[in-house]
Parts: sequence; structure tokens; C-alpha cells
Amino acid sequence: MAKGKVEPRIFKGTRDLLPETMRLRNRVIGTLRAVFEAYGFEPLETPAFEFYDILTGKSGEEADHLLFPLAYQDGRTLALRYDLTVPLSRVVAMYGKSMAFPFRRYQIQPVWRAEKPQKGRYREFLQCDVDIVGTPAMAADAEILLLASEAMERLGLEGFTAALNHRMIIDGLYERFDVDEKDRIFVSRTLDKIDKVGRDEVRRMLVEGEAGATLDACVADGLLDVLEKADLDAVEEQVRSTNAGARGVTEVREILEMVRVSDTAGRAVRYAPSLMRGLDYYTGPVFEMVVEKPRIGSLGGGGRYDGLVGLFSGEDVPATGFSFGVERLVDALQESRPPGLDARALRAAEILVTVFSPELRPNALAAAQAFRAADLRAELYLGASRKLKKQFDYANKKNIPVVAVIGPDEAAQGAVTLKWMDAGEQETLPLASAPARAKEKL
Amino acid sequence: MAKGKVEPRIFKGTRDLLPETMRLRNRVIGTLRAVFEAYGFEPLETPAFEFYDILTGKSGEEADHLLFPLAYQDGRTLALRYDLTVPLSRVVAMYGKSMAFPFRRYQIQPVWRAEKPQKGRYREFLQCDVDIVGTPAMAADAEILLLASEAMERLGLEGFTAALNHRMIIDGLYERFDVDEKDRIFVSRTLDKIDKVGRDEVRRMLVEGEAGATLDACVADGLLDVLEKADLDAVEEQVRSTNAGARGVTEVREILEMVRVSDTAGRAVRYAPSLMRGLDYYTGPVFEMVVEKPRIGSLGGGGRYDGLVGLFSGEDVPATGFSFGVERLVDALQESRPPGLDARALRAAEILVTVFSPELRPNALAAAQAFRAADLRAELYLGASRKLKKQFDYANKKNIPVVAVIGPDEAAQGAVTLKWMDAGEQETLPLASAPARAKEKL
Repeated sequence: MAKGKVEPRIFKGTRDLLPETMRLRNRVIGTLRAVFEAYGFEPLETPAFEFYDILTGKSGEEADHLLFPLAYQDGRTLALRYDLTVPLSRVVAMYGKSMAFPFRRYQIQPVWRAEKPQKGRYREFLQCDVDIVGTPAMAADAEILLLASEAMERLGLEGFTAALNHRMIIDGLYERFDVDEKDRIFVSRTLDKIDKVGRDEVRRMLVEGEAGATLDACVADGLLDVLEKADLDAVEEQVRSTNAGARGVTEVREILEMVRVSDTAGRAVRYAPSLMRGLDYYTGPVFEMVVEKPRIGSLGGGGRYDGLVGLFSGEDVPATGFSFGVERLVDALQESRPPGLDARALRAAEILVTVFSPELRPNALAAAQAFRAADLRAELYLGASRKLKKQFDYANKKNIPVVAVIGPDEAAQGAVTLKWMDAGEQETLPLASAPARAKEKL
Repeated sequence: MAKGKVEPRIFKGTRDLLPETMRLRNRVIGTLRAVFEAYGFEPLETPAFEFYDILTGKSGEEADHLLFPLAYQDGRTLALRYDLTVPLSRVVAMYGKSMAFPFRRYQIQPVWRAEKPQKGRYREFLQCDVDIVGTPAMAADAEILLLASEAMERLGLEGFTAALNHRMIIDGLYERFDVDEKDRIFVSRTLDKIDKVGRDEVRRMLVEGEAGATLDACVADGLLDVLEKADLDAVEEQVRSTNAGARGVTEVREILEMVRVSDTAGRAVRYAPSLMRGLDYYTGPVFEMVVEKPRIGSLGGGGRYDGLVGLFSGEDVPATGFSFGVERLVDALQESRPPGLDARALRAAEILVTVFSPELRPNALAAAQAFRAADLRAELYLGASRKLKKQFDYANKKNIPVVAVIGPDEAAQGAVTLKWMDAGEQETLPLASAPARAKEKL
């Protein structure tokens, strides 16, 4: 077992999630999961690594470079998953015959990407996806937006917007403005930057060909005029003569109408003609959840991708989904600490039960059990110190709000003294009524 | 994006966890986590892969062969973790200075082992560990046993026993019976099989040297006599003259006394002199949770390991812990379906809201939202069929117990018809009171 001294360290781009972060993260995941289940989504988990050929060639060559292969056989046999969509496609292909469709599934698992780590970009991070597989109905997309809006509200976030656009409207606009097929992906990527760099800069990039494609000045102005209005009627006027555009507008209207069933979603969901969403595979509506704090930006996004889930089965499987940025939601909550955030859930323990002396340890243990039975989070002091002062210091260091003391007097009376660390107040009461009292004041 | 047809499949020893399994698993994890937090344990997560030299040389050469290295650099730079104890040791070494000790942490994450897959043995499985780091006090070991017993009870399992033994008692017995140091590990492994193969077979193996060490017949008989009595007084008589044995007996008595604070643990925890626990690194009390159904056996185990956590820090860090076998707990609950198991949590959705016609879809959506707001799991039917019969079939296939119908009559009255699939009964009532009614009858 012995060995030369090894420097304790972790690989760049991976993280240890210490208790304070984990508590907030668990709170976010718990809330999301409750919303997912309220909407009838079912949990799924898949293996961390998949066969190499399952993962490659799905989301373009770029994604293939993100793989972490295992050193198994030739190092091209197995690799860690880089998303949860490819595994979903595989699951649908393998078990689809015995499943009922439409299939609503949620999946919350880490993914790994061999990217250069940056602030906020990790090589291991949690992916949290909801998808509805097996229906082309816009009601599915509306359900996804209802769910995403309700999740934001239940987390206690404010000022969020669910931006909604449609790939077919974008295609209709390109058709209308005669933008070459091969240039569209570059133009889309550039237009997507309007919110970040502003209209003038985007125009300059498009006209000077900086983004990989060069547009006529009047085409660039025409496109930017339409996008900037953020008005579905104005866009419709431009694209109604194109098949794609007309269908896109109809579907966006359908979704906007349906989400009005919820006040929250009705307020949050807005048509956003400049929303592009980078991934190639979207085919219909696209979504993005943003909060008004610019430092945080997107909290998740998604859209309809009718081509991807059928990759393995060879059948056409329409699907729509949304991916929540759990890490960013944690950051957003860490910053805003909304009142909706349950402070209780963020504490280590709620009560430290001190040990007055070795003889009184059984009393302390009994008190700890009484608090736990009442659904309070109680820690029995297990440190070396017999001094109450040191035990109080420990509670302070761990930010535990209540300390319980059972000294000889309390023990003789079947009582306990509760001390409220913040207020410095204390009261002695029968052990039987202490849990209720602690709960009341916490 | 296109590609030759790839056979959808997964690597042997890994699993897809489909919704039915996931629901039970989530229920087990949720219950365990609630108990862990009630006892003041704090959540921790660490990266899936660690530097190779962090993982190797910790639990013996055997463990090193279990690693899944990544094909990164020379394939000896990074590997998937094979347990959660080594990462804990690393965390304590890296962040210990800013942590308050004793540190109680829980960690629920997958681990990977390159073993030959067998029934019930996987290459990827969930590890669920609780540990108390930084105290030699037996109260810590007692807390672990209290927690483990309460977890079993809250899960609704019955007839469980927390077997308790002590490495120093075993050492005392070996000293007393003059078993050679080098033979002890082989003898322990053989004695550990008493429950499986019976006393006679174990005796034969020991005497005939089949297990790697040969004992005199009278030594084997002496050891087996003591172990079979399962009586602490009898064992004490044998080992009280040895330092290790005397200390072991005192500590076991201390623990047995402390766990009596809880009826559940008082009943469950029993001294079990033949409990060995394979791992080399245990140094004090050892535990194992067993249920009386022989097919399931151990549901988890642990013990005190005072040498391991200090490996990286170079300091002496006493620790004790317990590892729950989540997969086996899921199996145990799947088989016994105890009444304590919340049937609601195991269903996909509780209500399927059907869509009578496209015009009435908004009404269906509004009804779904009303059920969800009342904390019911409601799925809006999104399939292609307009026939109610097909929508009912879908509910049956997914085992959804209630179906809601809003036809033209219901829509005109602001009503909904609830149909109970099992009983075949139905009732029409105002939408406003439907969620409460559904909850009442579910």
C-alpha cells in the first residue's frame, strides 16, 4: 500500500464539487426533476462510455475531435459520451419496439469533451436533457417551453425570456434574400452575434466577408432590418411566399398560442428572429432561455431535430428537446439568491448536538436521534475536544445555526438547551418538545 | 451526418437504465440521501477520471488491474476511478486546511472496473458511500451503524441484520491460536465462507491447505468453535490476554451500547465473529448489512480504515465508513415491494390528458397544467391518433392509472371526465375540483 509521495491534484478542466456547491446543485437538480416528472417525463441513464462507432459521425467532424477514447484494444473501440442525444437515439433504436411513443425522457448525467478548458467551460460537466421523441406535433414543442418556463419560475429566477425562432423561417428569409445555400451557415453564425457585438459590427462582418461569406450591403441591411424588428408579422410579410417560411411562421404562431395556457410561459416565450442556435441538426422550432443578467446569458436551449433520433433505427423519428445548463443555473442562483431558494437546503447541518462529557454522550446521541426523527439535519459532535467552547467554534465554522447542549442539569431533567448562534439567545426545554421548537425557529 | 449503418449496441458489463428501473433507483437514492443528510453528512462529487498515479498502488495490485485508462498521452496518464475512497483521500489532502473536522461526507457516483462481467457484477456501477473522516471515536462507527439501519428501515426492508466484527479481535484470535502472520489473510478469506459453504467444508479447506495456508486440525477446530458461538463473552475469554483482542472487544461493546439509542439499530446490530470483510485496509470495526433472503445477501458494508485517507496528506487521518449496494437494494425492493415503497413514485405518469379533437387541444393543455400545478404527474397525449380508444391503449401500455377526457360537453361546462383505468369507473366534475379528486383516489 505504501508508495512514493504522490502530489494530490486533478486534471485541468475537471472539478471537485465540494459540499457548498453540491448542495445548491442538488437543489437545482431536485427542482428540475420534479418539474420534469410533473410533465410526465421519464428518467433514463446510459453508460458513460459507448462504442466508438456509435459516437462518431453524428454531429459533424467537430464533435468527433471532442471524444475521450478509452485505452482499450486500439483506443478506438470505446469512448466517453460527449452528449446525451446520441445515447437517446441508440436507446430508441434498441428498445423502441417495446416502448410507447411519444416517449418523453429526461436524462441528467455528466458528459466529457476534450476541449481546451476556459472559464465556465469544463472537460467534464453535467448535461440535463428533456426530449419528446416520436411526434411532429407542435404541442410537443409547446410542452417543452411550458416545462422550461415553469422550471425557471420554480427555481426562483426572475426576468427570464424563452426566445423562440424557427429554422424554416430562417431558411425562408435566406431564400427571399437570395443567400447562397453554402453561405447560410456562416451568415447564421454571424447574425447570432447581434446581441453580443451589435448590429453595426455584424453588418461590417457580413459585408466585408469576415465570417466566411460575403453579402451585398443591401442584402445585409435587408436581413438586419427584418431581424431587428423582432416582429412576426413583419417577418411573415417577407417569407410568406416561400414554403419553408410560411410553414415556420404558422408553427411559431401555433406554439405562441399554446404556451399562453400558462401565465409564466405566456410572459416568457417571445419570438426572437435573430436566435440561430449553432447546431446543424435542428430542423424546426429552436429555443433558448436567457436571463436579463448579461453575465450569465443562456441558461439552456434546444429545439426540434427530426433527423437525429432515427440515425440508428433507419426510421424517421421526429423529436424535440431542451438542454438545461445546470452549472449556469447554479451560478445564477448563487448570484441572485432568490427568496424562492430554500435556505434550509443549503446548510450543512441544522443542529450540532454537543457532547458535554463522555458520560453524557448517550444523552447527546439520544437528542440527535430525536432531532433526526423530526426530519431535522442533526450532527453529533465527534471531535476530540471536550470543551464546549471548541464545539461551538466547530458549529460556527460549519455555519450550523443551532447548537444543543445536554449538561448534567439538563440530563437530570430530560431537557436540552438550544442555543441560536446568530442571535446568541438560548432556551432550556424538555427534549420531547425541542425538535418542534427548533423547526419553528429555523 | 450520414454514415453507414451502425449496429446499436452497448459494451458488455454496462447497462442502459430504462425508466422502470430508474424510478426505483431514484427512489432508493432519494431515501438514502434524506437519511444521510438527517445525520449531517455532506454531499461531494469528484471527477470521473483521475491521474493514473493517484489511483494506483492504493488498494493493492489487484485494484490496479481493474482500471480503465483513457487513451490520453501514453494511456497511463488518466484512468476512470474504481472507487470513491481514493478520491476522498485526495480531496481531504487538497482542501483539508479549509475544512472542519470531523468531516462527514456522502458521495453517490458511478465507478468503473475492468472485471469480467457476471450476473450482478458490472463494469460500470453506482457506488454510494458515507464516511466520517478525522476521528478515532467509536461514536463515529456507532453513527454509521445507526444511519445504515435507519436507511434500511426507511426503504421498507425487513429482516435485516447489521453484522459487526472488529479486526483487532480477529488479530487477537490469530495470536491466541498461533496462526502465522503470513497465513492470516488466507485463513480470513476461508473463514469468511462459513455462511456459504458450512463449517465442515471450511474446516476441510483449512486443514488440507486448500486456501493457501495449512492449519493444524486442533487450531482449525478451536477457531471454528469460537466463531460459531457468535458470543462476545466467549470470544473475550479467548482474546483478553492479547492487546489487540482486548481493545477490539472493548470497542465492540462500546458500539453495541451506543446503537441501543435506536430500537431499529438496537435490534439490527449483532456481533458476528466470522465477519471478515475482504479488504486489507480495515483496521478496526467492520460492518455488513444482510437481509435474510439468501438470494440477495449483502446490501452494503464498511468499517474503520485508519490508514487510507492519510495516504496523500502524509498525516494520520482516522476514518470510518459504509458503502451501500444501490443495485442490490433496488433488486431487494423489486422483489419484496414492501408497503413502505411509495407506489406513486414508481409510475411513469399518473394522468394521461387525452386530446378529443384539435380544436379542444387548448382545453386539454389547460387541464394538464391544472393537474401539474397540484403536484400530479400529468402527460398530455401527443400521439398521432385522434381516436380516444387509441389514446386509452397508450395509457394502458404505460400503466397510467387515470385518463382525463375533455370533449365538447365537458368543454362547454368547464368540466373534465376522469376515468379510472383499473376499476373502469368514470366521473365528470368541474376542472377546478378535478386535481383534488384525482389525488384523493390515487
